[in-house]
Amino acid sequence: MKRIAALIAATLIVVALSAKEKKHETAQQSLVLASQGSFFVGGESKTINSPGRGPGAPSTQGEVTINQMYVQYQTPPGASQHLPVVMVHGCCLSSKTWETTPDGRMGWNEYFVRKSRSVYLADQVSRARSGFDPTTINAVKTGAIPPSALPNIIDATHQTAWAIFRFGPTYNKPFPDEQFPVEAADELYKQMIPDLNATLPNPNPTWKNMAALAVQLKGAVLMGHSESGFFPEQSALQDPSGIKANISIEMPCPELKPEQIATLAKIPTLVVFGDHLSDVPGIWSAAFDGCKKFVDQVKAAGGDAEMMSLPALGLKGNSHMLMQDKNNLQVADLILAWIDQHAENKKIARAK
Amino acid sequence: MKRIAALIAATLIVVALSAKEKKHETAQQSLVLASQGSFFVGGESKTINSPGRGPGAPSTQGEVTINQMYVQYQTPPGASQHLPVVMVHGCCLSSKTWETTPDGRMGWNEYFVRKSRSVYLADQVSRARSGFDPTTINAVKTGAIPPSALPNIIDATHQTAWAIFRFGPTYNKPFPDEQFPVEAADELYKQMIPDLNATLPNPNPTWKNMAALAVQLKGAVLMGHSESGFFPEQSALQDPSGIKANISIEMPCPELKPEQIATLAKIPTLVVFGDHLSDVPGIWSAAFDGCKKFVDQVKAAGGDAEMMSLPALGLKGNSHMLMQDKNNLQVADLILAWIDQHAENKKIARAK
Repeated sequence: MKRIAALIAATLIVVALSAKEKKHETAQQSLVLASQGSFFVGGESKTINSPGRGPGAPSTQGEVTINQMYVQYQTPPGASQHLPVVMVHGCCLSSKTWETTPDGRMGWNEYFVRKSRSVYLADQVSRARSGFDPTTINAVKTGAIPPSALPNIIDATHQTAWAIFRFGPTYNKPFPDEQFPVEAADELYKQMIPDLNATLPNPNPTWKNMAALAVQLKGAVLMGHSESGFFPEQSALQDPSGIKANISIEMPCPELKPEQIATLAKIPTLVVFGDHLSDVPGIWSAAFDGCKKFVDQVKAAGGDAEMMSLPALGLKGNSHMLMQDKNNLQVADLILAWIDQHAENKKIARAK
Repeated sequence: MKRIAALIAATLIVVALSAKEKKHETAQQSLVLASQGSFFVGGESKTINSPGRGPGAPSTQGEVTINQMYVQYQTPPGASQHLPVVMVHGCCLSSKTWETTPDGRMGWNEYFVRKSRSVYLADQVSRARSGFDPTTINAVKTGAIPPSALPNIIDATHQTAWAIFRFGPTYNKPFPDEQFPVEAADELYKQMIPDLNATLPNPNPTWKNMAALAVQLKGAVLMGHSESGFFPEQSALQDPSGIKANISIEMPCPELKPEQIATLAKIPTLVVFGDHLSDVPGIWSAAFDGCKKFVDQVKAAGGDAEMMSLPALGLKGNSHMLMQDKNNLQVADLILAWIDQHAENKKIARAK
């Protein structure tokens, strides 16, 4: 009874808070989850012969598991009314990308859950809790292969991040309308971890794993960002059967063959770019143009594709890390509305 | 109103489920969180000069952040009645250790939250979402230092895990009373990721970060396992001021100086070991004896220390991965009861 009383009390608090709810001020309200957990998608055994730990220690022979993808999920009550959303981070980052922002606000992971979606955060294969294949590094240590065989580990600097993430025209000088919380840039830099994607086979196992996850979920929206921005499409080219929509945020779009465009034209597609694309050196202006061309190709093939330019919609100053920007929940609302309209209404229409 | 109605409906479901609640069958009930999120503890800037990505690419000069510790937390309603618990994983693993078990049951992270504790999961510095310092590997690639300077990356095999984690006398043959869900061993192997602790300075930055986290939380219980089993004590030797209890699970205990024992004797200490310590080759029997000596030294110095041998308490067949064993919630109950009695009652007594 004590437990039941506590639950009722907790609900009354939530109800009371709901009464004075303001848009986007949900951080102080209790979060109710139907379930949560973590698991892996994919992975295969590999026989290794590692150098021992410490001088003179014996080498280790046996099997290890590689190419698995770690996934963490939360499911709110009522989630079955919506498609689950799979979020995959970019270069030199982990799923931390989608969580609490560098200045301590709610991330998209929790916001989407509060909007009644199941959210699946995946660490890319070779990053963070997914682990990586250390075979090459260990083989160089034993002298079996030369140092030049070592992978290019991308270790992005603060200076690189400031420029590529479009925080401002020069290091530590933000754009006047910058939406990234630059006062907390040091907290973003802590999220930046070495990128070992150079150790991966081709095609990238993350693509197959994302496609398999969508099948496992019996239909999902795939979302990628930056390095993983085109991973939803790459996943669909591996196996489109579970993918109900693709959301690609800020990346270069590669040239595709007509049959690839035809496959992707069957999946509602949203491409999102922020602001200041031409105001920093680098790839952004060309990336936007290349993705505009991709969107036009999908449309020409009969697909439902949208190029969402945030400044064109009146949202100014968004950085490359727009899921962490000060207006991140406003951007999320645009994406949620797009999912509702383009992926879920269509689902209802198909079910008729 | 629709939102309020949904919340009340959700609570009625929870209340209905509570009525037929059975011990340890809580996985199907909604989970209510007052808050959740993630952040970093520690971290410092380092100037690097990395090789460029791809042939002919320019090198990257600038600053990166190293030695930061990623922490993910969940706080249930009523958590202020209890001490928060910080859980740190062992070798070749990540915080996944504490989450959904390999066979899909509830992990300690959620169980402790359901027992009204705030839980903080920390990825060790140099592992998973905390990232690592790739400077040495990159310097070998450029030829600045020899291959022998590469770190010993521990890449534990399935065979090593089976033996060290005490799943059975020989590979793929479990003990008759084995508590680890060996049918799901492949899912455990996916959790095992390369261990780069050999890249860390001494003292290990995780110790300082755990101590700092305890201060930041205004008092916490620190829990470590295996490689990190003695990290709670090592943290206390860095700064004991925030640490309200230490829980050390299955590790070797080092020899300490009398003044170190005196520091640790001020903190309630629980050491936990499972079963079959003498039934596999390796360190476990000696580790138990060394830790028994440590516990006795703490007691002799006036401290409150307990050596908890699960088989001595009637729990048979527990593996090294006891937080994932089939009776993992029974083991958790023993630890929760110890916290209540030794760390929290004392807190109440002090407050009088």
